[in-house]
Amino acid sequence: MDERLRSQIDFIIEVDKMKNILRQTLLCDGSRRETDAEHSWHIATMALILHEQARDRVRIDPNRAVRMCLVHDLVEIYAGDTFAFDPKGNEDKAARENAAAIRLFGMLPADQGGEIEALWREFDRAESPDARFAAALDRLQPFLSNSVTGGHTWKLGKVDRKQVMRRIGLVEEVLPGLWPFVLETVETGVREGWIGED
Amino acid sequence: MDERLRSQIDFIIEVDKMKNILRQTLLCDGSRRETDAEHSWHIATMALILHEQARDRVRIDPNRAVRMCLVHDLVEIYAGDTFAFDPKGNEDKAARENAAAIRLFGMLPADQGGEIEALWREFDRAESPDARFAAALDRLQPFLSNSVTGGHTWKLGKVDRKQVMRRIGLVEEVLPGLWPFVLETVETGVREGWIGED
Repeated sequence: MDERLRSQIDFIIEVDKMKNILRQTLLCDGSRRETDAEHSWHIATMALILHEQARDRVRIDPNRAVRMCLVHDLVEIYAGDTFAFDPKGNEDKAARENAAAIRLFGMLPADQGGEIEALWREFDRAESPDARFAAALDRLQPFLSNSVTGGHTWKLGKVDRKQVMRRIGLVEEVLPGLWPFVLETVETGVREGWIGED
Repeated sequence: MDERLRSQIDFIIEVDKMKNILRQTLLCDGSRRETDAEHSWHIATMALILHEQARDRVRIDPNRAVRMCLVHDLVEIYAGDTFAFDPKGNEDKAARENAAAIRLFGMLPADQGGEIEALWREFDRAESPDARFAAALDRLQPFLSNSVTGGHTWKLGKVDRKQVMRRIGLVEEVLPGLWPFVLETVETGVREGWIGED
């Protein structure tokens, strides 16, 4: 095997570790926490289904968005998953993830590692239409899980309505058709005590 | 929420069940069996990395191949995973998966369900360049796992060299650069007793 292909196979085996990174989000049946690999598959598949619903759909390249979904959490192999509702963990998230990116993407041939790193950084900035779409899915997926698991991560993070709205707000702009459902679900969460009043 | 969007959200929650379908393949660290969602994420990501290595790369649309990877096992939500080295389970696989396809893709709006079903059927026929590429990745990924877990599913299926070669043969045509590694790994497997002699 030539060196380029060898490094690609080594990378493919290394990223198997995405199956060991546990998120706080539960499977929809509540049976256990999902892994980063499962979450990444889920939002990539959601991108295929929901692209047509995006307000900005003509400016979004669904194929680039799918790629972002596939690679957006790879750095967590070394940096670990940071719970969205953990202010302390989020303080040094950027530094941990930067170090992880250098180590992980550096395994690949420079041109290919650079491309994936650029996709990840674009996702992380959440500015381009593709990245905003992917980021909205990244927030919608655990929101859907919460809607069917009695607000599991909302209770875990002891969050209030303001925190939930700040986190899910991107969906209003990106997938406006979903917004009434989001508002209704948050109201249910407050009424059921899964989400605190402001 | 309008009816079209409601059916899409219901589908997205339904396919969460991909996280409950266990394959025989182990994680690369040997700690447990992987799920269909994890496997689908892994081969979709492999498609991004390995497209440049495909013999037929100019005829392969990597974006379509990624889509196929994401949806290729969805029918297993109802049909279950069929172990590659289980001749009995493979007898009625097509019938079980056809029934599952009607039930699952029928949840989506007809145009969208039809598109995903067509992608799945194209993958399953393994005739088009995109489908042959995706199918080669679908076989390579558990092969890589076997190479680092002492041939776990080879031992489980009590397979011989001929069976392994029949299963992985597609890689010779699709990803010829990997073929020397495949042959060497099979020889190691035979020498170590993970794979039986013919």
